[in-house]
Amino acid sequence: MTKPPVTVVGLGSMGSALASAFLTAGHPTTVWNRTASKADPLVAQGARRAGTVEDAVRASPLIIACLTTYEDTVAALAPAALTGRALVTLNSGSPAGARRMAAWADERGARFLDGAIKNVPSAVGAPDTLLYYGGDKTVFDEHLDTLRVLGGDTVHLGEDTDLAALYETAVGGTLLPALIGFFQGAALLRSRGLEAETLLPYATKWFEMIISVLPMYTKEIDSGDYSGPAASVDIFHAGAAADLELAGEGVDVGWQLPMHDLVRRAAEAGHGDRSIAVLTELLSVGATGSSTTAKHPSRRADRP
Amino acid sequence: MTKPPVTVVGLGSMGSALASAFLTAGHPTTVWNRTASKADPLVAQGARRAGTVEDAVRASPLIIACLTTYEDTVAALAPAALTGRALVTLNSGSPAGARRMAAWADERGARFLDGAIKNVPSAVGAPDTLLYYGGDKTVFDEHLDTLRVLGGDTVHLGEDTDLAALYETAVGGTLLPALIGFFQGAALLRSRGLEAETLLPYATKWFEMIISVLPMYTKEIDSGDYSGPAASVDIFHAGAAADLELAGEGVDVGWQLPMHDLVRRAAEAGHGDRSIAVLTELLSVGATGSSTTAKHPSRRADRP
Repeated sequence: MTKPPVTVVGLGSMGSALASAFLTAGHPTTVWNRTASKADPLVAQGARRAGTVEDAVRASPLIIACLTTYEDTVAALAPAALTGRALVTLNSGSPAGARRMAAWADERGARFLDGAIKNVPSAVGAPDTLLYYGGDKTVFDEHLDTLRVLGGDTVHLGEDTDLAALYETAVGGTLLPALIGFFQGAALLRSRGLEAETLLPYATKWFEMIISVLPMYTKEIDSGDYSGPAASVDIFHAGAAADLELAGEGVDVGWQLPMHDLVRRAAEAGHGDRSIAVLTELLSVGATGSSTTAKHPSRRADRP
Repeated sequence: MTKPPVTVVGLGSMGSALASAFLTAGHPTTVWNRTASKADPLVAQGARRAGTVEDAVRASPLIIACLTTYEDTVAALAPAALTGRALVTLNSGSPAGARRMAAWADERGARFLDGAIKNVPSAVGAPDTLLYYGGDKTVFDEHLDTLRVLGGDTVHLGEDTDLAALYETAVGGTLLPALIGFFQGAALLRSRGLEAETLLPYATKWFEMIISVLPMYTKEIDSGDYSGPAASVDIFHAGAAADLELAGEGVDVGWQLPMHDLVRRAAEAGHGDRSIAVLTELLSVGATGSSTTAKHPSRRADRP
């Protein structure tokens, strides 16, 4: 009954899921969206519809913004008085975008926390749903009970305002490539009149296999020791030729060419018998991996 | 004690794991490798080392070949008399390669089955390890007990000799893209002095999320109904811009460009508000999805 009020700005599928979770948890919830009708289902669920974004920001000490980009967030919030407000952004974006967003929030006198929810809207509110945040730790601590409504696995990565975007980008970089690989597989089956659904049990086991080998790869990457590989550059180099043969099976494989080129360059650089994880070195541009900075975000700010 | 004999040709890390599993299960196991010393650990485990590939093939009615490619397999087996032998290939390769391999085996009078083991060598022999096969069902049925030694989840997809390669390629097409995405994430963290290991818990949850949404995508693909998406082309189109900003964070993002181009073309073709799974349509080149052929391999040959 005495749950603190919260405002949600941006009511796409994710923003609506966030607002709905707050309502379910009993928080007085104010909502605003440029297209006001998007708020209708939430109003039916008990939300208060703000007529303007100024009004929405005035309604609560904690403002959750969930627009498509940081630029959209700045544009939407521009008219509002943010001084002293705790502003939490939950859109996707680059680390540089998060830093620009943080600078803007700072100019406007807001206390700022940038977060990422790496999941689908239907997962919002589940006990194991992960959200991580970077930025003002006092905002995180003060509103932790409220933020935990959105997912039980809620983590503060550190004071740097771009840490959530950094990790989100680092993690999320696998999504589009993995999906396009899966869609290519579906297209390949379709060329034989087979349904994509028949791929599911095998693809599921395959992704589970990928999960199981990631710790081996991070050990190689962090130690810089790529000898004794379970899967060598040469193995992937040989596989690339087979992948290209799919061009004759009704599938467009052009999207793979720069990846094959990366593997070929690794082989030509003498990494053929080393682990495929050595590609990390080729993907690093002028990175130093300096040991003068923190190696682990939790050394700077432990999980609550 | 009366387990049937088996021959394993090709003793790389996977071939050695296969031979070792047969030995552990009590099968008289003959092994051959061009570099004979690769057989030493297996001989110590009880394997019989064949002096020539002709001798190796003569030793058993069932020949398991695990070389790097189909071409390597043909080259290795060329001197041997294969008439009447059951030949099972377990290398990676394209469907076209599997068909060429099958034609060669047929000319040589072998009964042929092509299989795929979508896993790492250490998984060989586990009760839930998956192997699937396409080709001569009588070979599969006759040697099923022996083949099951390699993994408890052993499936015959159908009589077409390229079905295992087809599914393997369809499934496996996610590996290199997903790994490069992960390595890029590791490179991104390294540019900030953070260890790749800190990515693990988040990347694991992320891949689990990807697994959880695949059934939604296959439903869209098989029905051709991409409306009402959980993740639209436009969302990925917006995300592409953020990905490119990583070029300023010490990471080479060039390998992503054709994927972004694919998403852009989908948006320009009017698919912006449809599911990202619509990319399957753009990846299909002249495919018909003809309903005159089987839609599901299990309709032709059920799992045993």
